[in-house]
Amino acid sequence: MEENEKLETMDYEAIHEKRTDELTELLNKRDMKQLKQRMEELNEFDVAEFLAEIDDNQMPMVFRLLSKETAAEVFANFDTPEQEKIINSITDSELSGIIEELYVDDAVDMMEELPANVVKRVMRAARPETRNLINQYLRYPDNSAGSIMTSEFVDLKKYMNVKEAFARIRRIGEDKETIYICFVTSADRKLEGIVTVKDLLLADDDTVLEELMDRNVIFASTTEDQESVSEKFSDYDLMALPVVDGEGRLVGIVTVDDIIDVMEQETTEDFEKMAGILPSDKPYSRTSTVEMWKNRIPWLLFLMLSATFTSMILTSFEDMLAVQAGLVAFIPMLMGTGGNSGAQASTAVIRSLSLGDTEPRDALRVMWKEWRVSILCGLTLAVVNFFKMLLLDGLILRNDSVTVAVAATVSLSVLFIVMFAKVVGSALPILAEKLGVDPAVMANPLISTVTDAVSLLIYIYVAKIILHI
Amino acid sequence: MEENEKLETMDYEAIHEKRTDELTELLNKRDMKQLKQRMEELNEFDVAEFLAEIDDNQMPMVFRLLSKETAAEVFANFDTPEQEKIINSITDSELSGIIEELYVDDAVDMMEELPANVVKRVMRAARPETRNLINQYLRYPDNSAGSIMTSEFVDLKKYMNVKEAFARIRRIGEDKETIYICFVTSADRKLEGIVTVKDLLLADDDTVLEELMDRNVIFASTTEDQESVSEKFSDYDLMALPVVDGEGRLVGIVTVDDIIDVMEQETTEDFEKMAGILPSDKPYSRTSTVEMWKNRIPWLLFLMLSATFTSMILTSFEDMLAVQAGLVAFIPMLMGTGGNSGAQASTAVIRSLSLGDTEPRDALRVMWKEWRVSILCGLTLAVVNFFKMLLLDGLILRNDSVTVAVAATVSLSVLFIVMFAKVVGSALPILAEKLGVDPAVMANPLISTVTDAVSLLIYIYVAKIILHI
Repeated sequence: MEENEKLETMDYEAIHEKRTDELTELLNKRDMKQLKQRMEELNEFDVAEFLAEIDDNQMPMVFRLLSKETAAEVFANFDTPEQEKIINSITDSELSGIIEELYVDDAVDMMEELPANVVKRVMRAARPETRNLINQYLRYPDNSAGSIMTSEFVDLKKYMNVKEAFARIRRIGEDKETIYICFVTSADRKLEGIVTVKDLLLADDDTVLEELMDRNVIFASTTEDQESVSEKFSDYDLMALPVVDGEGRLVGIVTVDDIIDVMEQETTEDFEKMAGILPSDKPYSRTSTVEMWKNRIPWLLFLMLSATFTSMILTSFEDMLAVQAGLVAFIPMLMGTGGNSGAQASTAVIRSLSLGDTEPRDALRVMWKEWRVSILCGLTLAVVNFFKMLLLDGLILRNDSVTVAVAATVSLSVLFIVMFAKVVGSALPILAEKLGVDPAVMANPLISTVTDAVSLLIYIYVAKIILHI
Repeated sequence: MEENEKLETMDYEAIHEKRTDELTELLNKRDMKQLKQRMEELNEFDVAEFLAEIDDNQMPMVFRLLSKETAAEVFANFDTPEQEKIINSITDSELSGIIEELYVDDAVDMMEELPANVVKRVMRAARPETRNLINQYLRYPDNSAGSIMTSEFVDLKKYMNVKEAFARIRRIGEDKETIYICFVTSADRKLEGIVTVKDLLLADDDTVLEELMDRNVIFASTTEDQESVSEKFSDYDLMALPVVDGEGRLVGIVTVDDIIDVMEQETTEDFEKMAGILPSDKPYSRTSTVEMWKNRIPWLLFLMLSATFTSMILTSFEDMLAVQAGLVAFIPMLMGTGGNSGAQASTAVIRSLSLGDTEPRDALRVMWKEWRVSILCGLTLAVVNFFKMLLLDGLILRNDSVTVAVAATVSLSVLFIVMFAKVVGSALPILAEKLGVDPAVMANPLISTVTDAVSLLIYIYVAKIILHI
């Protein structure tokens, strides 16, 4: 039947919506038997989405219809609020069943988000071994390979042959996160090589793994930053990466689906830093007003206070600006153009650094390129601005203070400001990288505060020279 | 030997560097036999990196040491300049060998980047079937599922049993991008279900696929946007996704390693849009000065010209500002604070929209939240600014024009400006999403131009009321 649906519509979104509607209908009809069966057939992400949208009173009841395995998978796909709701409405033994079914990395993720009292109850419900494992994983530093790895991998020995390897995969593979990449370890659990199921399938039954395995293993250490782990996945097109401790013992693996989450999280952090927001782990919709205030106010305060320099410059040239009051009208445009030019350069360089396309040693090359780009951009803007001021501000809007000399002053300032902004905008992120600071911090807000002050000085000195004031 | 290295150092980066150094040494010693052997052992990404760094004259010669399979894999890992170098220095038959070994998606990627004359030569070297396939894939719209899919997948039939399925996987699996997810298709190539190697391994030999396969397939259509494809990978933790045409026929698959590239590319595009840069496919280091000028000047011009409104406002209140010349000194700070507040809100909302955490229908909830955050931020800034102006500007810097009334004017303006900026900053991206425009365009530059003008008006009207001018 589902097959027919597909052949008729061929639109995944339509099929998906129809399926969710069917679940809602079955729930409204109280046809629990059918509902249970349909939920078991669907992908656990879709079931989690369906459950998250139904009424709070009904949700735990519907969740309990699921089989133990599906329940754990759906549970792992829930956001924290739904996980809390479920934990608070099931028995200890049901809770224990779910915890034991979860992959360790999912359990650890959950523990990091849940309130302390709920964590306590979950830990009590877990078996001692599971509890120890979770506790051990919770001790790895935030955002390290250790904090995102999981313990459910297939380990093999190098003296096994292909047939024995398959026998072991069949025996222990059921609840592993991946069976396709297997890890060959020594008696003392040191990582010796990897072998893929593809290698195994294409080899003869009696080939020994020692001949088959790849010793040139790409691995991470437990304390390695997750951003570096995700670069390895991207460079080497990996499906899973082994994680070893200081003694070379295999302690866990990171799988590619976790890396996709890491990439999303790291990108969000970069966006936040570049907008002058302190990074937070929580999604926007679940961040409270006070938390948002806490994340946003530090940079706003710092940048507001930094603007004191701009005020001081303006104050000290007050007399000059009083003589040529018309000049004030173009200050916002000049600052805006400086800020935008700097933001373009810094954003491009920050992104290039984070993709590994630019290295700190390319600093001079980058600045030289930005210098040339800034001359092209600056000249274009200056010429357009010159004629715009004479025609629009001067002739059409009849702004008497706009003379040829004033238009020239503003236009020449545009050129110099753009040149300054682009070169500084590209240099600061690289400098940050060299100093071991995240370049993303050197983004728009900070650079525009610097360019604001310098733009003003450029404008004033150009005016002094051209207008003789 | 490599094993010992690992056990001693346990630092992947150190091992990696040592290996590259060894390759360089072998090359300098002209020990081509050893060099060839070591290169064959290493990961193709590392070999590609090594080759990209050695001298242009030697590079093609060293590349030709590689076996046909490795050569194709290393070639796929090259950037366009290295690919071009190789193509220009090998014979037609060597080129043909590489093209036939490449996965179609890698070949298509390459064709999209290479100059037209090189593409022509490559196409001539390819076998007619390969040429047709590449041409067909090149016709899919840019950034669609069709443009990133590949044709190398394992297809099975539902009447096969597990043993037959394994036989087919062994026979055709060697050069498939993934063998772990197999696709069950009907006689007319319509997608009927998927079956994983894990399912097959854990089942009995004579189980028929029809009983084993998952009919609840998640799929994409050829014209679907790659961003939506990548969301499916992230939601459902997929390793591979089938792509079907309008008639439901399976035409290709997308694998998770390609999705990682897509995610990086989409993130770069978002960063560029948010900084007022037209998105380009090329990395920063390979974009020419003129191209960078072309990508950056449109927004710079538009924003510069938009600042005419701010100039007009300032000009029309020139007389009033002349009376209270001290007020001008705080305009840059007010505009900066408005711009930064707006950028924080818009960035947070844009990111939340792109992660699917916020939907357009949440518009009122989001604006209500930003409204409350803006009151908290605005009040904090206003209070700090009030005392800072009185103490720093007034007492310490002895700026006579800073009276209590002026400090109150500026501080009250800060409050209103932050409130305006945050609400507009959060509303514009949602509005864009509703109108089908990419919300990323509603970011910092555009919002600061809007808030610049409004900030000024707020300031002037607050001054009129408090200072009675």
